[in-house]
This record gives sequence, structure tokens and C-alpha cells, in this order.
Amino acid sequence: MIDRLIKKIESLKAPILVGLDPTPDVVPEEFFFEAAKSKGETVQAGAFALFRFNCEIIDAVAGIVPAVKPNIAFYERYGLDGIRAYIMTARYAADKGLMVIGDIKRGDIGSTAAAYAGHLGSAALFGREYEIWDEDAVTLNPYLGTDSISPFLDAIKEREKGVFILVKTSNPGSADIQDLKVIPGDGQDLQAIPLYEHVAALVSEWGKAQGMMGLQGYSKVGAVVGATHPETGARLRDLMPHTFFLVPGYGAQGAGAKDIRRFFDSNGRGAIVNSSRGIIGAWKMSGKGACSIGESAYKVAVQMRDEIGSAL
Amino acid sequence: MIDRLIKKIESLKAPILVGLDPTPDVVPEEFFFEAAKSKGETVQAGAFALFRFNCEIIDAVAGIVPAVKPNIAFYERYGLDGIRAYIMTARYAADKGLMVIGDIKRGDIGSTAAAYAGHLGSAALFGREYEIWDEDAVTLNPYLGTDSISPFLDAIKEREKGVFILVKTSNPGSADIQDLKVIPGDGQDLQAIPLYEHVAALVSEWGKAQGMMGLQGYSKVGAVVGATHPETGARLRDLMPHTFFLVPGYGAQGAGAKDIRRFFDSNGRGAIVNSSRGIIGAWKMSGKGACSIGESAYKVAVQMRDEIGSAL
Repeated sequence: MIDRLIKKIESLKAPILVGLDPTPDVVPEEFFFEAAKSKGETVQAGAFALFRFNCEIIDAVAGIVPAVKPNIAFYERYGLDGIRAYIMTARYAADKGLMVIGDIKRGDIGSTAAAYAGHLGSAALFGREYEIWDEDAVTLNPYLGTDSISPFLDAIKEREKGVFILVKTSNPGSADIQDLKVIPGDGQDLQAIPLYEHVAALVSEWGKAQGMMGLQGYSKVGAVVGATHPETGARLRDLMPHTFFLVPGYGAQGAGAKDIRRFFDSNGRGAIVNSSRGIIGAWKMSGKGACSIGESAYKVAVQMRDEIGSAL
Repeated sequence: MIDRLIKKIESLKAPILVGLDPTPDVVPEEFFFEAAKSKGETVQAGAFALFRFNCEIIDAVAGIVPAVKPNIAFYERYGLDGIRAYIMTARYAADKGLMVIGDIKRGDIGSTAAAYAGHLGSAALFGREYEIWDEDAVTLNPYLGTDSISPFLDAIKEREKGVFILVKTSNPGSADIQDLKVIPGDGQDLQAIPLYEHVAALVSEWGKAQGMMGLQGYSKVGAVVGATHPETGARLRDLMPHTFFLVPGYGAQGAGAKDIRRFFDSNGRGAIVNSSRGIIGAWKMSGKGACSIGESAYKVAVQMRDEIGSAL
């Protein structure tokens, strides 16, 4: 998966990722009205409107970005109908040749994590194995430790799949726990480091397991490192030479192209930068209404590609 | 929510919770065959079999336990059909008078957490607010900090709902991050504490916000503390006098009644203990086959209630 992602990034010269996080305020009213015509003013209609909106975005960016990242929270909020829209979105994106990174941030104890690993592996029923979800990679939360990650490593070992583990997230609250100074080892060593560096070491370690390393020098076990912390990004880039970064927080969350350079390696590789609202909400800034969703998303994505391209 | 839970626990004299975590190996073959008759050997049939199995368990324990805890991972692995089984299970349990604690362990940055908070609050569409999920409380992962929790606090403030935040989980891997020695504050204070104690302090703090405190001395912001760490449980009980504990890891994971006392306050209150496999898988030990699912679950739940009752 990581080799395929790197190849796609290089052929498109676009280390960028479109976050498909449709909130009702970013989807034009027309889409809701249209869906309500056949389905009534129902949750089903609302969720379908989100999917239809995503299709517009996907059609617009399919030729210029390698991947999309739907965050399942924006679908799960609508229950079953929302999950259906998430699954349809992932399938539609995959059909258009885009890789799909499911932003699910799951994490649970070993036996339960094995169930969640169905996102990337398969689920057994009636003596058969079903591959249910259309994700090429997912994001994971490390708080529950190694046994919460292992089932995903088992699932991706033999497959073209990957994971991105939260190391340092883009939000202000990330400081509350991730920035804490910790004393690793048995406590004899008083050299305190931020918790995210300890997690970084675990992530690097997990990436060294058999079957994880790609041909391009990066492992299938990636890290999420927020664009809003460029100093931290630079430090983690040094500490994790074989870990590919998924970098959220560009655009709407405040980070710009000049901050981004530091998340990449000296060859301008090793990271992919996500923008959600900046791209999917671009049509609202265009003054041209709902017809310009695709055009506006395309324009902003190209602009982001070029900005990051010149910064690298 | 927390007051209602405490009242139910006291009237049933049962601070116990049944984990509805159906894996295919715990559900009798007959259930799959039966479901396949009308739906074929499909994922839909498989997921429906899980739901039907849960109904047997729910019917058996509804009079003796206050709540159930389905872990969404065991449903999500089967995609849309699985989520349908989760939702149907929650609704069935609620209809039988059981409280439902959705073990979802979600956590994301503020704006995304607001979407996840739809589990306990409402989701807006067509100018209306929809309450989609049938959960009285959910579990949350704290790794992303305060802004990942706040939207849930907003959702439960005005509702009879609650949250349980992971502090120290029951699995061996919990040591990897949760046990790290951290130096809180500005780093001047070299008094290192385990990370879970720092998280415990945050959880206590969140529980002090307006509208969080119940009438019985416990707040709506609870903590998950694994039964497999009795020393830690005792320590956290002292540190968090107003925090109600959800205690997983009883039975199959190895903790017994004698370890459990320490998670409760001096009045024998303040915690609810979960058993999943020990109860839902009890029929496999009975030697009586699939007809004894309910009977076996009932028996083991009564036994667990009595064991914990005598330990308190």
C-alpha cells in the first residue's frame, strides 16, 4: 500500500489528500432537497445527500490527487444511513482510482482490536472470509498499546494495506496528554521526552516487523502528525526515517505550505498532507453556488498541490 | 444517567454489566443456519444471527442486571449489516428496560468529536434534530485531550446520558503507554506519576463542569479501570472520589471477586463490573447446547452478582 501511495504521489506530483468530512453546512441545500424528493425529509435522504456531494468532489479531484480520507465520524453521526454513505463513498472513490484512507481512529484491547481489524482484513462467516470495507489504510489510536495494534499489523502484513497511528494530532487539546514529559524505560533514566516521541518510537518499532517495509524505504505503519506543529514535525521526521506521515491540519486548521516542508524527508518525500474543509468547502467562497463544487475543489486542490510543490 | 444507573444497581443489588460481544464462535451454529434460511449464507444473515443471539442473552439477564455493554467492534467488523445488528441490539435492550453503554472508545479532534457526539446527542438534518443512537452512555479514548471530550460533555449536560473515559484498560498492552511515568505541569515538578493518574485528574476535572454531578455523589463523567489491576483500582478509587468506574476484565480476562472490592467506595458503591465472554459464552460450558444460552447466562450472571455481593 505504502509503495502504491508513494508511486501515485510521485506520478501526480501531489502529496495531498482530500478529507471527505461533509457537515450539513458544507453541502448545498439543493442536494438535500433533491434527495428528499424520492426519500422524504429523512435521515436516509440526508445521508444520501452527503454521498452525492462526495461524488462531486471525488469526480473533480480524481485526476490530481492520489487519495481521499473520509472521517467516519461525519457519517456515523447519522447511524446506519450515515455508515451506508461512508461505505458508498469509499467504494465510489476506489472505483475512480483513488486510494481510501479511512479516518476511523479505532483502538481497543487485543481480542476486540482483532474485530476492528476487519476494516483492513476479512471477517469470517459461514466458513468463508468476507472483505467488507473498501479502505486501503485506516488511522489508529495508540492509547491501548501494542496488543491494540497487533491485529492490524497481522491484517496488513500479507495485503496491500496500511495503518497510520496517531502520534501528535493537530488540535490544541493534543497538548493535554501527547505533550506530557515522560520517563521511558524503568524510570532510572531521568531523560524525560514528550509522550509523542515515546509513541513515535513504538510506531517505528511496529513498522520494523516482518512484512511491513515497502520497497521505497517506508513501512506500511505510518504516523499521523499534525501540520499545526512544524517544530514537532521536523523532530519526528528525524526520529522516524522509515515512517510515512499523514499530516492533517492544513488550510482551515491554520498551517500553510511554508510549515509543511519540515514533515518531508530531504528528497521531498515521506508525507502526505490532508485538507478537508479548505477543499470541500471551497465552493462556498466562490460566490458561484452549488454548480461550482467540483470546479472550486479542483482549483483549491491544484493550488495546494502547487504551493506544497514549490515549498518542497 | 449516573443516578439512574446507581438506583438500578441498588434495587437489583447487582453492580454488574453484561458485555454483548458476540463472536461467531460464541453464537451456536443453529442461529446461523436459521438466519440463512431466509437470507442465504450472507453477511446480512450472519449479522442477524448475532442479533438473535443477543436477544436470548438480553431476555435472560433483563431482570437481574441493570445494563448491557455491546462493544461496537464486534458489529462494525461486518460493515453495514453489523452496525444494523448493533443498533437493533441496543434498541432491544432498551425496550427490555436495560441501560445501554455503547463501548465505542471514540476520540477525535474537537470539530470531529462533535460529530461523534451524535451517539449521545442529536444530529441536525432538514432543520430538525434527530436522536439516532440508543445509547445511555459511551466509552471514550482520551488521547486527543480536552477538545476531544468537550462535545460529549455538552451533549450529556442537559440529558440523562453519561460517558466513561479510558483511564487504565484491562489488557497487557495498557502498560505500554498508560503506565509511563509522566511529569505533569511545567516540568519543574519532578514528582513523576503514571500517565493513567494524570488522565484520572483530567477525568475528575471534566466531571466537575456544570451539570455533570449527579445527586448520589458521582458525576456523569465516569472512568474505565480494568479489573486486572486491583492495586491501580484502589489507588484510582482514592484519587477519584466522585468518578464512577466501569470495570472490565472480570471472568474471562482473569480478575476475580476478591480483586474487585478495591474498585468500590467504602459503602460498596461507585463501580459496575463487566463480564462479556464469561456470561455470553457460558452455554458452551454447560454441555446442554444452544437451548441453554439463556439459562447458562442467567446462572453465571447470578453467580457473579452473588460473588461480588459477598465481596463488598
